[in-house]
Amino acid sequence: MTGPLKKLPIYPVQRLTALVADVPPAHGLTPILFSVGEPRHAQPAAVGEIMGRCPPGSLGAYPSVVGSPALREAIAAWLGRRFAPAVVDPACEVQVVNGTREGLFSLTRTVLDSSPPDAYVVYPNPGYAVYEGATVLNGLRSWVYDSTTASRHGEVFLSVPEHVWARTALLFVCSPDNPMGGVQQLDAWRTIFELSDQHGFTVVVDECYSEIYTGDEPPLGALQAATLLGRSFERLVVLSSLSKRSNVPGLRSGFMAGDRAILTQAARLRSYNGGGMNPVVDAASVAAWNDEAHVQDSREKYREKYRHVIPLMQRALTIATPDAGFFLWADIARTGLSDEEFTRQLYAQQSVLVMPGSYLSSAFGPEPIRQRVRIALVAALEECMEGARRLQAFVDSLEPAQSLNLETA
Amino acid sequence: MTGPLKKLPIYPVQRLTALVADVPPAHGLTPILFSVGEPRHAQPAAVGEIMGRCPPGSLGAYPSVVGSPALREAIAAWLGRRFAPAVVDPACEVQVVNGTREGLFSLTRTVLDSSPPDAYVVYPNPGYAVYEGATVLNGLRSWVYDSTTASRHGEVFLSVPEHVWARTALLFVCSPDNPMGGVQQLDAWRTIFELSDQHGFTVVVDECYSEIYTGDEPPLGALQAATLLGRSFERLVVLSSLSKRSNVPGLRSGFMAGDRAILTQAARLRSYNGGGMNPVVDAASVAAWNDEAHVQDSREKYREKYRHVIPLMQRALTIATPDAGFFLWADIARTGLSDEEFTRQLYAQQSVLVMPGSYLSSAFGPEPIRQRVRIALVAALEECMEGARRLQAFVDSLEPAQSLNLETA
Repeated sequence: MTGPLKKLPIYPVQRLTALVADVPPAHGLTPILFSVGEPRHAQPAAVGEIMGRCPPGSLGAYPSVVGSPALREAIAAWLGRRFAPAVVDPACEVQVVNGTREGLFSLTRTVLDSSPPDAYVVYPNPGYAVYEGATVLNGLRSWVYDSTTASRHGEVFLSVPEHVWARTALLFVCSPDNPMGGVQQLDAWRTIFELSDQHGFTVVVDECYSEIYTGDEPPLGALQAATLLGRSFERLVVLSSLSKRSNVPGLRSGFMAGDRAILTQAARLRSYNGGGMNPVVDAASVAAWNDEAHVQDSREKYREKYRHVIPLMQRALTIATPDAGFFLWADIARTGLSDEEFTRQLYAQQSVLVMPGSYLSSAFGPEPIRQRVRIALVAALEECMEGARRLQAFVDSLEPAQSLNLETA
Repeated sequence: MTGPLKKLPIYPVQRLTALVADVPPAHGLTPILFSVGEPRHAQPAAVGEIMGRCPPGSLGAYPSVVGSPALREAIAAWLGRRFAPAVVDPACEVQVVNGTREGLFSLTRTVLDSSPPDAYVVYPNPGYAVYEGATVLNGLRSWVYDSTTASRHGEVFLSVPEHVWARTALLFVCSPDNPMGGVQQLDAWRTIFELSDQHGFTVVVDECYSEIYTGDEPPLGALQAATLLGRSFERLVVLSSLSKRSNVPGLRSGFMAGDRAILTQAARLRSYNGGGMNPVVDAASVAAWNDEAHVQDSREKYREKYRHVIPLMQRALTIATPDAGFFLWADIARTGLSDEEFTRQLYAQQSVLVMPGSYLSSAFGPEPIRQRVRIALVAALEECMEGARRLQAFVDSLEPAQSLNLETA
């Protein structure tokens, strides 16, 4: 166990800060941050109101590590409405976390306790850095699968070697995924559950982007898929949060739901390494999960941006419209620049900041992805439009040698 | 690493809940909870006011994992005032945590990274369960020292064998300590720092109870001791929180301060397993650290309780007046009951709940301490007085055989 912290790269946001630290901002241009998935639509009014009601004594108790009954009931009710026919028991199948990051780490640590030595964790590449962090910091072995494949019908899981599945403790799935915005379909879940049943590993599903989608049908959820397939929640835990759904990443409010035995073990761990949720945050979260109007408003705003911003950006770069989420996974190959060069030059010339693809790539997978950058459409429509225009001006300004690449791309 | 979670006992609060779950409450008596150190004095007014100011967008950013500059400056300034001549740099020697529990776990995980295999963590017995939890869950070996010794001049640290120190990664010290309320003196710190310098281990000091004390002089702090002894903060990290100081255990707001290299590594870890502090909680915490009046008020209330409640309780049990903190470490040997029997019978007869001593004892030390219970004087004076009267009525009601013990005690 000695040294795994050193094996991990610096967290992507900090790497990006260092990458552009010495780049002087472009003169006269307000910076536009496409780099971080920090939602900037309105937070639900009820959240502020309830945070505002902080009567004397309201902070006087140590919170329960699983969250208040009221919040667990609100979450179970939301899950039931959103992912019918799935039914979740608030008493033992829901646990509140202070953001999914903490939950992902604790679940990994929990699963480790019943794992064979040198067990694998299988997770998407590229993907959220916390899957890899939780794996490495808990002394587990990494196996990454290619999350850039267009299909979400389970083929990618069949590509993982049998000998890896045989020693796998945990599979992370992100659906809708970050940064591609793809949604795992029912046949993918059938494959995943069959593999889990065969090999006994736990499936942890990150559904943080589930409420932002472009089509008419909301993305399928894993608890929903399990129910549709006639399966229990055994060895299945889903995480989600209010950060993206309700535009309150600062609230630090999420949940884990699913296998009650795993959640019981996780609560036991979290009584030692966690600390429960501030009761005012807990009460505000109840209001947020109970309200759907602000979520619809926010979703419409994303759709408007997709309609107007993506066509503009597609003039500059190769960009597919995602099924869900607020990220664009832009192909920059035509510019001839690496992701880091692209990021630094775009920031220097246009004060537009994006996230290099290699910073979202596993340190334990194949070569980092250097021909992509991630663009988060989190700002208001006008700012996103302005950013798209600047992006195009930047690509147009590139040297002839790079323009040549552009024409042959 | 397989299985350490199962080696840990259930967390003390949950064990206590289970212990009395089948005990019917005494008829007509309002329960008095002496069991948990959950402060019940007034929370500072400014905390509620600032939590109440939650303007639109205030929750729209992912917080920094180290805390806002404003909060780190407020903490450094408080440390400078309270623990002069110690001077702490808010830029790199302070890090905000969501309660010290999270910080203690993360520090243990961080120190592990540069430890020899099978390294020891040395911690007090009895003591806060999180020291043991952080040790076991991170796969380290436990060595406990006897924290019940009356002296706080360093002898207890000299009793740890040389071969243990030689393989020690981390020493936990709680000062003022829980549950005894003793304060480590300057010569104890000299011994601790000499051992740390000789063997290279990190010293993590939990000072959560530092603002509640009976004498005129505030308890010596570890950063203060280091400065007085002409030493840097190398291999020294102190933790404290607003839970006890400002009576807001629900706020989930604390800090770590000291060795900048260790804090840098901890921040790197916490970017993967933590998640930063809600910015509204962050702002409320600034107000709390900047105000000392509510701390003085609260301290006076504890002193009043010590003056009036302890003499009453001493008629029933052998109890020493602590130097600091709000716990009494009551000797129940004269009753002839074990700590669990005492707790259940007291609750059944008088609806007064205390914490069994064995629940605060290490699972890796000598025999659990069964002749003590911990009494938290957190309720208002009148409730504590009523609790003391009921405690005496309970002890008086015990069988003649036990009364005999009482007379020979």
